[in-house]
Amino acid sequence: MPLDLGAKGSCHIGGNVATNAGGIRLLRYGSLRGTVLGLEVVLADGRVLNCLTSMRKDNTGYDLKQLFIGSEGTLGVITAVSILCPRKPKTTNVAFLGCESFAHVLETFRVCKGMLGEVLSAYEFLDNECMKLVQKHLKLNNPLTGSPFYVLIETSGSNAGHDEEKLNNFLEQVVSSSLVIAGTLATDDTKIKALWALRERITEALTHDGYVYKYDISLPVERLYDLVCDTRARLGKSAKNVVGYGHLGDGNLHLNITADSYQQTLLNAIEPFVYEWTAKYQGSISAEHGLGFKKKQQIYYSKPEEAVELMQKLKAMLDPRGILNPYKTLPTRSSH
Amino acid sequence: MPLDLGAKGSCHIGGNVATNAGGIRLLRYGSLRGTVLGLEVVLADGRVLNCLTSMRKDNTGYDLKQLFIGSEGTLGVITAVSILCPRKPKTTNVAFLGCESFAHVLETFRVCKGMLGEVLSAYEFLDNECMKLVQKHLKLNNPLTGSPFYVLIETSGSNAGHDEEKLNNFLEQVVSSSLVIAGTLATDDTKIKALWALRERITEALTHDGYVYKYDISLPVERLYDLVCDTRARLGKSAKNVVGYGHLGDGNLHLNITADSYQQTLLNAIEPFVYEWTAKYQGSISAEHGLGFKKKQQIYYSKPEEAVELMQKLKAMLDPRGILNPYKTLPTRSSH
Repeated sequence: MPLDLGAKGSCHIGGNVATNAGGIRLLRYGSLRGTVLGLEVVLADGRVLNCLTSMRKDNTGYDLKQLFIGSEGTLGVITAVSILCPRKPKTTNVAFLGCESFAHVLETFRVCKGMLGEVLSAYEFLDNECMKLVQKHLKLNNPLTGSPFYVLIETSGSNAGHDEEKLNNFLEQVVSSSLVIAGTLATDDTKIKALWALRERITEALTHDGYVYKYDISLPVERLYDLVCDTRARLGKSAKNVVGYGHLGDGNLHLNITADSYQQTLLNAIEPFVYEWTAKYQGSISAEHGLGFKKKQQIYYSKPEEAVELMQKLKAMLDPRGILNPYKTLPTRSSH
Repeated sequence: MPLDLGAKGSCHIGGNVATNAGGIRLLRYGSLRGTVLGLEVVLADGRVLNCLTSMRKDNTGYDLKQLFIGSEGTLGVITAVSILCPRKPKTTNVAFLGCESFAHVLETFRVCKGMLGEVLSAYEFLDNECMKLVQKHLKLNNPLTGSPFYVLIETSGSNAGHDEEKLNNFLEQVVSSSLVIAGTLATDDTKIKALWALRERITEALTHDGYVYKYDISLPVERLYDLVCDTRARLGKSAKNVVGYGHLGDGNLHLNITADSYQQTLLNAIEPFVYEWTAKYQGSISAEHGLGFKKKQQIYYSKPEEAVELMQKLKAMLDPRGILNPYKTLPTRSSH
């Protein structure tokens, strides 16, 4: 399956496609826009739209299935999916590394892309604040000595010896050049799962920390962590924790802020600050989660007016009575 | 650049995106639906739609750029493109192999996917009729003794030693099991280009053979060559040559039929036979070339009526006066 994500235990494939889920392997296998080959969709008028091909190439007319991928159920209900699956890799390795600065996380990524190349299947990062939360709330063990930043690198390939050699050459390079100050390697399933848990269970740890303000942002990778630092500085002691983690390889940051309880004043300090900051660097205020109900009014931070107008025309055409997942994704007209 | 195709010397990127071009590396890097990150489009009313992000992930509203990819200029004019480029591979190898049957071509592909895995960047095939045409009309040299089928395999990777070892192990396997009866390997640029020419210059050789009836078909890979055989048997001596080649790794066949000159009776023997045959196996009658002017009436062989109706509504919404590349892609209503 070309898609994998933290919610794999509870999510459904229809929802994954309807929200254009990204997740941890997008770096390797690309987005659902490329891997979904066909869809069956029920339209607002009850008719079934059959675009359920399993061909890799089909240029007969417009690619209608794209309308429904990522439209959050507002244009039709996805009832069947055909998806292109790569071969299951014969071998998987995970390296968990500590870096002294975010600049080193980025430089390690650059070296990694060159030396691991086609076997790289994930490049995730978390800051030390995330690590403290999974240690405190979930009693997970940090296998490294404390570092300001952690990186999880996964390789997946067809030849165990080759992958191991690539990974060892890479580790030698980043350790000897002091880009990485601590590291551990996993080749067996149990340890691989334990390392992934440090990254995948951050969301769960956050829910134990109090009320969570969640942001899912795309930014040019060199700007990614500046947003966390600026938000942390801005909020000061009014927030309990301001943490950053995410799919660095895709330029996707999960910025999360916790407080003992929901506070409107804190929200006012966060928004529109985070959105304006993101818009300034041409980022996306909703990278992989979708706008849903809470963020639909914020669409203009990432999309021009002409685009939103065209989206509203599409909605009116496909769902003239507004019965499909109403009040989601698109802004109410009066708000702008 | 994630896209490469035979027409690289003359095509333009706007046209590539507007026709959702596939080409020889789709197998490795996926379709433009996944690699195009952003577009700037001029709409029918003259307004500029700016969806020119360079973020890998952006789920703020509907993905409008998908409307214009592959719509052949009938919904808007693409004026700028942002595209995700993988690192340039450090090392490239090409193997050119001969097989005794199409079944062996398929079995070789299965072995290849397992043993070359992530370094496989192209799996192309041509039949002996194609080889004879490039020899006759372009004076190209066949480096192998005559075989009924030829396969071109390309690897691209980050470690020359590893890729060579993978390729050698694979070749040993397919030769020792007699899946492959002849083969040659290229690692230097000149020989690599010479081998690729055998595949990429088939179109050119065909134009020297007379009038060419061209079909660009997607089919389940195990059915791919049956269409060539059945067409050849059906047409008998009324055709000069019936040849098959294409992107086997993507299930994409180029079926070409030549005659000394255009004959309506020959066309009547080919169509709708080829389209009906393709529809019977749920294939696509236009895999990577688009319907254009000549094939727009044939859309119903690959798309249901509800889908075409929705496409026509999209066209009416985005181009109410029908001024964008008129008479293309969508069927005229009266014809069905």
